[in-house]
Amino acid sequence: MNDTLSRLAVVLEQRKQASSDKSYVASLHAKGLNKILEKVGEECTETLLAAKDCEHREDKSELIGETADLWFHSMVMLSHLGLGPDDILKELERRFDLSGLTEKASRQTN
Amino acid sequence: MNDTLSRLAVVLEQRKQASSDKSYVASLHAKGLNKILEKVGEECTETLLAAKDCEHREDKSELIGETADLWFHSMVMLSHLGLGPDDILKELERRFDLSGLTEKASRQTN
Amino acid sequence: MNDTLSRLAVVLEQRKQASSDKSYVASLHAKGLNKILEKVGEECTETLLAAKDCEHREDKSELIGETADLWFHSMVMLSHLGLGPDDILKELERRFDLSGLTEKASRQTN
Amino acid sequence: MNDTLSRLAVVLEQRKQASSDKSYVASLHAKGLNKILEKVGEECTETLLAAKDCEHREDKSELIGETADLWFHSMVMLSHLGLGPDDILKELERRFDLSGLTEKASRQTN
Repeated sequence: MNDTLSRLAVVLEQRKQASSDKSYVASLHAKGLNKILEKVGEECTETLLAAKDCEHREDKSELIGETADLWFHSMVMLSHLGLGPDDILKELERRFDLSGLTEKASRQTN
Repeated sequence: MNDTLSRLAVVLEQRKQASSDKSYVASLHAKGLNKILEKVGEECTETLLAAKDCEHREDKSELIGETADLWFHSMVMLSHLGLGPDDILKELERRFDLSGLTEKASRQTN
Repeated sequence: MNDTLSRLAVVLEQRKQASSDKSYVASLHAKGLNKILEKVGEECTETLLAAKDCEHREDKSELIGETADLWFHSMVMLSHLGLGPDDILKELERRFDLSGLTEKASRQTN
Repeated sequence: MNDTLSRLAVVLEQRKQASSDKSYVASLHAKGLNKILEKVGEECTETLLAAKDCEHREDKSELIGETADLWFHSMVMLSHLGLGPDDILKELERRFDLSGLTEKASRQTN
């Protein structure tokens, strides 16, 4: 099994229970939803700025880091509200019929 | 293999090549980076508003839909700049030592 | 009297009462707070992108237009919630002691 | 004279020249455009969250404070790029024909 987001979700649930002075994730939960959403918004802004800088720069490591921050904090948000990455991935599967795609792809290889 | 984001990335690369009047994704690429980033910002705002509404509402389907939109458009952004979800997932693995976690978990089941 | 924002606030209050199929402002109020806040977030994103483009472009008209959109929609938000630009300007006065500044400036010209 | 934004702009230009360890505004300019835009995005998110909280709360002081922060940092952005509030106010005047409104209003009082 190679599902990074699922494994990250396990880590996030563990840290949600941790002491808030030992875990960044626990401290976010303790500060509440607004603080978590501020971080999501902040990381989105930093992602946009890093993407714009890619127009004039070869190095894309900052964009990778900021997008990771954005996905990470959106997962903390989901966890805070009793959801997880599977809820989002199922929705993406449904929209893009990705299971169908796999079937179709497997038929093509036959 | 159960990697939704990887399969979605395949779909996104296919649609990147499609005619822009037949594919929403192709039309975003044709309009350029600013248009794609506007969509990322827009979906982030809608995610924040949907999350706030979860404070006073049981139904979380809108938050699921908006977060899916946010992840989807951030993947279009990555694709536009020559990156993919693996770049982000590898960064998250690195930060959280998720491979180590798996090892530790597999040791525990032994 | 040269207070653009105050005069704009008068226009916004008038349009708030207008038919929502004749006035853009009335249609925003009819759609509700989330729609208005989506517009504020959208215009903020477009302002950030236009500001980034100013790093590599002489023409600043797009940034002026987007910032005007951001201020305009934040004023619609204030109006929707029973506030106006004076509430914000008073807060800025208080923080920066701008009345004191004027006094000091007038002393210097004596 | 009652033009808060114009007076604030004067303060902002003075602080732009100040030592960056004595002035918050000077420190933002020293850190550069991305840092300033991060603050604009951050304050926009906080404004949206405060506006949502007004749906379930009487006290609007937080929304006033966050909107003041948003306008303030957007003025720092304008200053960083060689613009000022007059550029935005002129654009709003142009769009809403606010000078015409004043004329019409003055005719009504005659």
